[in-house]
Amino acid sequence: MNEAVATLEGWYALHDFRTINWTAWKAADDEERAGALEELNALIHEWNTISAERSGSTTVYSIVGQKADFVMMHLRETLEDLNKIETEFNKTTFARFTEKAYSYVSVVELSSYMAGKSDEDPMLNPQVVARLKPALPASRYICFYPMNKTRNLGDNWYMLPMEERREMIRSHGLIGRSYAGKVKQIITGSVGLDDWEWGVTLFSDDALQFKKLVYEMRFDEASARFGEFGAFYVGSLLDSEKFEEMLKL
Amino acid sequence: MNEAVATLEGWYALHDFRTINWTAWKAADDEERAGALEELNALIHEWNTISAERSGSTTVYSIVGQKADFVMMHLRETLEDLNKIETEFNKTTFARFTEKAYSYVSVVELSSYMAGKSDEDPMLNPQVVARLKPALPASRYICFYPMNKTRNLGDNWYMLPMEERREMIRSHGLIGRSYAGKVKQIITGSVGLDDWEWGVTLFSDDALQFKKLVYEMRFDEASARFGEFGAFYVGSLLDSEKFEEMLKL
Amino acid sequence: MNEAVATLEGWYALHDFRTINWTAWKAADDEERAGALEELNALIHEWNTISAERSGSTTVYSIVGQKADFVMMHLRETLEDLNKIETEFNKTTFARFTEKAYSYVSVVELSSYMAGKSDEDPMLNPQVVARLKPALPASRYICFYPMNKTRNLGDNWYMLPMEERREMIRSHGLIGRSYAGKVKQIITGSVGLDDWEWGVTLFSDDALQFKKLVYEMRFDEASARFGEFGAFYVGSLLDSEKFEEMLKL
Amino acid sequence: MNEAVATLEGWYALHDFRTINWTAWKAADDEERAGALEELNALIHEWNTISAERSGSTTVYSIVGQKADFVMMHLRETLEDLNKIETEFNKTTFARFTEKAYSYVSVVELSSYMAGKSDEDPMLNPQVVARLKPALPASRYICFYPMNKTRNLGDNWYMLPMEERREMIRSHGLIGRSYAGKVKQIITGSVGLDDWEWGVTLFSDDALQFKKLVYEMRFDEASARFGEFGAFYVGSLLDSEKFEEMLKL
Amino acid sequence: MNEAVATLEGWYALHDFRTINWTAWKAADDEERAGALEELNALIHEWNTISAERSGSTTVYSIVGQKADFVMMHLRETLEDLNKIETEFNKTTFARFTEKAYSYVSVVELSSYMAGKSDEDPMLNPQVVARLKPALPASRYICFYPMNKTRNLGDNWYMLPMEERREMIRSHGLIGRSYAGKVKQIITGSVGLDDWEWGVTLFSDDALQFKKLVYEMRFDEASARFGEFGAFYVGSLLDSEKFEEMLKL
Repeated sequence: MNEAVATLEGWYALHDFRTINWTAWKAADDEERAGALEELNALIHEWNTISAERSGSTTVYSIVGQKADFVMMHLRETLEDLNKIETEFNKTTFARFTEKAYSYVSVVELSSYMAGKSDEDPMLNPQVVARLKPALPASRYICFYPMNKTRNLGDNWYMLPMEERREMIRSHGLIGRSYAGKVKQIITGSVGLDDWEWGVTLFSDDALQFKKLVYEMRFDEASARFGEFGAFYVGSLLDSEKFEEMLKL
Repeated sequence: MNEAVATLEGWYALHDFRTINWTAWKAADDEERAGALEELNALIHEWNTISAERSGSTTVYSIVGQKADFVMMHLRETLEDLNKIETEFNKTTFARFTEKAYSYVSVVELSSYMAGKSDEDPMLNPQVVARLKPALPASRYICFYPMNKTRNLGDNWYMLPMEERREMIRSHGLIGRSYAGKVKQIITGSVGLDDWEWGVTLFSDDALQFKKLVYEMRFDEASARFGEFGAFYVGSLLDSEKFEEMLKL
Repeated sequence: MNEAVATLEGWYALHDFRTINWTAWKAADDEERAGALEELNALIHEWNTISAERSGSTTVYSIVGQKADFVMMHLRETLEDLNKIETEFNKTTFARFTEKAYSYVSVVELSSYMAGKSDEDPMLNPQVVARLKPALPASRYICFYPMNKTRNLGDNWYMLPMEERREMIRSHGLIGRSYAGKVKQIITGSVGLDDWEWGVTLFSDDALQFKKLVYEMRFDEASARFGEFGAFYVGSLLDSEKFEEMLKL
Repeated sequence: MNEAVATLEGWYALHDFRTINWTAWKAADDEERAGALEELNALIHEWNTISAERSGSTTVYSIVGQKADFVMMHLRETLEDLNKIETEFNKTTFARFTEKAYSYVSVVELSSYMAGKSDEDPMLNPQVVARLKPALPASRYICFYPMNKTRNLGDNWYMLPMEERREMIRSHGLIGRSYAGKVKQIITGSVGLDDWEWGVTLFSDDALQFKKLVYEMRFDEASARFGEFGAFYVGSLLDSEKFEEMLKL
Repeated sequence: MNEAVATLEGWYALHDFRTINWTAWKAADDEERAGALEELNALIHEWNTISAERSGSTTVYSIVGQKADFVMMHLRETLEDLNKIETEFNKTTFARFTEKAYSYVSVVELSSYMAGKSDEDPMLNPQVVARLKPALPASRYICFYPMNKTRNLGDNWYMLPMEERREMIRSHGLIGRSYAGKVKQIITGSVGLDDWEWGVTLFSDDALQFKKLVYEMRFDEASARFGEFGAFYVGSLLDSEKFEEMLKL
């Protein structure tokens, strides 16, 4: 039996992608739309308060293309918190004008391939805690995709000795680090929680950096041989004002 | 021809995942909603009675994310019993406010890779019967996923000699056992009954244990080389009170 | 070029899986429902007459789980007959309360891997005819699944010499025969007619026998290396009375 | 770089599969239905005129099973012609009672694996033109399926030398020729036009010949190792009278 | 770690495929339809202005078959621009008569496998800029398909040394160049932006050239071993007049 790498987990994450039913939105009267917007703004305000209090973090981005119109990304302490947020949104008048597009359930994760041995409780380390319970940035662009490590005959990540995996992860990390300051990356694990093993959420002020980063990594053995990727979602920041503008007829 | 392992079967199982049609629910008037809830509570009460009488077991959990809003997991003596429960639910007023999300038909199963030889009828052994006709726990969290054993050229579980399979299952079991007290696991077989070969239902008071357990197992050869996994569903206990709270507008 | 095995074909088969639209059914008034049931019963009566006259055979089973609510399995002389039955059903009032779930078009088939050489016309052999134009049994349970023989690099059924195929089919048949009296099996071929190569329909008074049979076969090389399986449907007999009971609100 | 085989192309082809919305059809009043039928018959008459003038060819067949209720197969000089036919149909009243089921865009193709060298312009050869711009037959049955040549590691059709491909195509053709008089086959190419590489449309007065032909070919190396098949559609001729009968309530 | 090829990026691209809901369009009254057409024409006029000003480029084509009825292909400076265009379209009255069919988000890309070394900033080279920010041609036909480079065990593009990839790309390019004057090709990259790695958009006045080009390339090792293709969409130019004609009842 092969050795699993140790992981640390922080906040649970829900990526909640929705599509706007424009026909219904246009068919509604002004009053209904105003009421829907008011409820939506109240929710956003609530999420902002939680983010400000650091008991969670929420951000909203529009999505380009037909896959979805916007995504709400929530980080919270428990699965019940996420479930409650979801139900709360579903009960709003605004939700009636949206349709489900895709969702992803995971938990912020740090893997310790690189960690030195230590007797210290990592949760006492403020830097570690800041990464496990991060404040989601207000970057101009977001990119999200889920991924697996391949298990296909000779290309089976989970059959590799720890040493080989560590070396590949190290090389992979070097690419990531070369984008420091340009792209912020949040890894969430979803083994046992959702259909893929990891979710990758990237934030940047330059959308081209997503392409550069993911393309460069694809030539790295960890991705080239062992990376399996789901759908890619890309979009731009949607604060309250932009959300209202988007919905204005 | 290779030797199949002997299995014991107990209650039939139906995992019935449903989504709430919130638009319809919000459009209904108070009376309709009250009537729907009353019928739902009557059904839940009926299921609780059967669970109490030990002639079956039913539990209900909410599901996080867009895949479903809740799951009803039923264990009963016969397929007809499950069919009847399903139809009964479909006839309720509440069902009109739900949509099908996913279902899984299987039967509680014990495989005897580890069993010593014995002339005793295992169904006379109360411990065996308790595992084949289990009372579903009221843990805080549930995790469900279906799975297959791979049959892909060199990685073909069903072409392995019994001895190799036994050794891998033993190693696999050791991981499971190390989570005893933290995670309760119910294996249901569905060869000939549904599209995957097995369903795994996990119960725990700590959702992180699902991730830890499934991730650790993934490095085990039985999973690494031979495990194929379907969709993962995760959620939290939904008793009558919580269900009403969830549905309250 | 490899040698194809000779086959004999009998009646064409249509497996017609449907889902009940319970919301529409409950929204209909008593008169509409009574009219719909009357039409349905007239159809079932017509099918029973054809079965009694041995000019075809039809049976109806409920299906457990969300894949479908019931299946109508029809055997008839020609494809046009099947098409006519389908259209006739679609024109009934009852059909308005159902939705399509899945269908399968095939023809009852006997392959002659085991047949001795003979100059006799097999269609003059009453036993052969009885298998090619079978009266569908009124067993308590049904199980249906479509399947292919694999063509994946080294595991390519159609590249095996006849002798190897014959040996595997022989061993496979031995398992089948060991379930004689417990499970009745009807093989229908669909190469050139539908998306899979064969459909397997099993009938038994004990649903567990489906699981035992399919699981035991999976360790047989013919299945382990060369069997690819589609969706599995399982359910219980639905005579006129049970159908009415199912539909009664 | 490997040598591509030369091909000749004739008429563009659209296979347009549709499903009848029986609920809407039954809900319409007699006048609407009569008007819809009149428009449908006018279209069919127009198509027949074009077929008679040999400026194209159209045929209509019913389809057995739930995949579709009927297919309109059109051959025309240009893609715009096909697009126009499609839009014309969509604008009819009858189209309101149908739903899209599947479509396939391709062009009649002759590949010249077997062709002798010649300086002659093949389009001056009446036999070649008759095959590239064929009059679709009014056989009793139709069978349609799309297909690819495999590109999977060692089984990669496009990496084979021309000589090996030619030999396999020759052997494949021999089987086809042995069905001459029983099955008429039209090959349409769709590389660059639709999702599969070829569409195969078979016509016969005996549906069993489709099964015999496709099954026999499956043991041929060209199919066994290199054939990948999409969905199979099978049905029977639907002339104006039969179409009206099918739609009569 | 393997060497990634350098790329240059220009305008972002949105391929927005839509289907017309003919039933809704026919049910609308003349005034509604006239209003919808007016809004559509205003949008097209706006897009034409942007194309004329060279601050972007937009073209519209009808699509043959059921996959979609038309595609709007937009090139713009930023992702926000594309998002805005999309939302603007969704808000029109005309959009109410359409449904989403497929969309693709990417960015015009030049890869420099062939580029000589140079100290010059390529964006100062007018020829490079013209290719990165191209004016979309008004050819008679369009062909679009997304694609990946394979990563399947021995056939893993990203594990090949740069030299081998360069040689294959060179050979691939020679085929492309032999179609110069017949087919115009725009490559857009979507790694990190959408589900496939590249989008290929071809323009020609002869649709058969799409088939010839893609088929010839398929025998080239770069495609034969390493090309994975998504859905193919083909159609003909739809200027304002043709669009109105298509929509005229």
